Amino acid sequence: MVHTSPEALQEAIQKVSRSLEDRMAELLSVPERSSSTVISMNKTSKQDGETSHVRGADTVLEAMRYSALSGGKRLRPFLTACSASLFGVSWEAAIETAVAIEFIHTYSLIHDDLPAMDNDDLRRGKPTLHKAYGEAAAILAGDGMLTYAFQILASPKIHSDAAVRCDLINALATASGCWGMVGGQMMDLEAENVTLSVDEIIRLQRLKTGELFAVSCEAGGILGKAPGMMRNLLRAYALDMGLAFQITDDLLDVEGTRTETGKNVNKDKIAGKATLVSVMGVERAREHSQRLIEQAISHLSVFDKKADNLRALAEFVISRKV
Amino acid sequence: MVHTSPEALQEAIQKVSRSLEDRMAELLSVPERSSSTVISMNKTSKQDGETSHVRGADTVLEAMRYSALSGGKRLRPFLTACSASLFGVSWEAAIETAVAIEFIHTYSLIHDDLPAMDNDDLRRGKPTLHKAYGEAAAILAGDGMLTYAFQILASPKIHSDAAVRCDLINALATASGCWGMVGGQMMDLEAENVTLSVDEIIRLQRLKTGELFAVSCEAGGILGKAPGMMRNLLRAYALDMGLAFQITDDLLDVEGTRTETGKNVNKDKIAGKATLVSVMGVERAREHSQRLIEQAISHLSVFDKKADNLRALAEFVISRKV
Repeated sequence: MVHTSPEALQEAIQKVSRSLEDRMAELLSVPERSSSTVISMNKTSKQDGETSHVRGADTVLEAMRYSALSGGKRLRPFLTACSASLFGVSWEAAIETAVAIEFIHTYSLIHDDLPAMDNDDLRRGKPTLHKAYGEAAAILAGDGMLTYAFQILASPKIHSDAAVRCDLINALATASGCWGMVGGQMMDLEAENVTLSVDEIIRLQRLKTGELFAVSCEAGGILGKAPGMMRNLLRAYALDMGLAFQITDDLLDVEGTRTETGKNVNKDKIAGKATLVSVMGVERAREHSQRLIEQAISHLSVFDKKADNLRALAEFVISRKV
Repeated sequence: MVHTSPEALQEAIQKVSRSLEDRMAELLSVPERSSSTVISMNKTSKQDGETSHVRGADTVLEAMRYSALSGGKRLRPFLTACSASLFGVSWEAAIETAVAIEFIHTYSLIHDDLPAMDNDDLRRGKPTLHKAYGEAAAILAGDGMLTYAFQILASPKIHSDAAVRCDLINALATASGCWGMVGGQMMDLEAENVTLSVDEIIRLQRLKTGELFAVSCEAGGILGKAPGMMRNLLRAYALDMGLAFQITDDLLDVEGTRTETGKNVNKDKIAGKATLVSVMGVERAREHSQRLIEQAISHLSVFDKKADNLRALAEFVISRKV
């Protein structure tokens, strides 16, 4: 039924990742010292000969690059690129939109890793941003990335029709604000050492990660001015796929090793957090994620073989080891 | 020359503040428990009879309200309302825009007060947000407000022309991102215990607070589709006025008392931060702020008496005691 081989899928993801990272590197480049936007200041130092700079924007940009360009699965950008291709949207517009979405995802990881939040010291096999640059720089880099995302979305590079840009901005802000991701993160923190039901965990996950998955996939439809029905099918696909992805994450947290996943494992258990795996058990959770993937693929039935990458992605996310 | 009396100015500021706060309260209202967007979860508690909820979005909204509705001078909203009135922009559109700008200002205060940043426990005479709600809620409430600001700006309530909304979003994001406010805050943290020159402090202040003042005043021109020349004059006015405002703040920090200003004083000295007052001395700094105000008012010469509130505001900011 799915005609994209696992190798072809990986190649397609790599292609999106390369374009995405090239564009992110461009947008986060630290200008030469002569640039008018950079203020460098000589420190009056107690040690003769020592020079130091107050770098401001440069420090924030460097911190943003550290987090944005340190790998990651680039699933959300891939969703945007795949859905954009269904409606003949240009590659450049899809990548530009994907950068904004990945900036929002990256900022959320930076803030989520902070000591006052999940207090994590390892991310993608590297020290978390606050471990590498300090807490203040991590807070500000997160703020800067979130702000930058909306600046990118407001630009004509995204779409010549400003109404489409506003539509995207509204969808992204709704998915990532207090009624979406931010609310989900708060809920997640409040849920430590609280016994949640399966339904409650599913709703928590939907806010914390599902809505951003949904809008990443809907974005191609927004850019392509697709009818509401198609946008909703893309959202439904991404919500089911995203939840299956999350369950796999939880399974890896229980069964994986730090070396394989590039982050500390058993974090949820240590934090006393209920997950679908802890509530349903490993076997039932695995079965449930399989059903979700079948359901996700069924939402794509109106689309022709152009949606094969999305179908293959759904099958991949529950078979992955990292 | 200025025909608005100090009393009339205060009344005009109060009028904007009331509309602003009414609208903020509406936008930050916590819905009834039955609302579909609220997930409440019963805690399995060790103490019988104790019930607790995982509130998520509600907690974030409550924290946002705490900060947004705890007073403040509402200078930026007033700038937006005044500049909007020059071009016949509707009161509702001006207030909606002002709410978004005030949300960005408020989020920056919340994050700036965090222990890893300025580590402040008092703001507007009340405990800072992280003191009242904890650090995690303060980080998330700041993130939520920043995101909400862009959601508001993308809405047709701001302007029927989506290109105007994108123009505003771009201007706001530029002023508050890593090349604006966020970069200025990073620079401010890096500048502790570094001796800066007068020019360096002026450039730091421009990024940290000036650009947001400028865009608050330019916003009326953007909403009114004013020519670039007029937008630039409004920016120039706000930059001079904003710097004079900052110098007055620094003078109050040196000379004021905690009771008068509603916040801890002598903070800059304790943090080892250079200010224009510490570098120029009290008298020269006071003279400089007077010159800035004259210059600010001169930028308004193309505008008729409709700009009298802006002229009166400029004179007010350097005479204030809080």
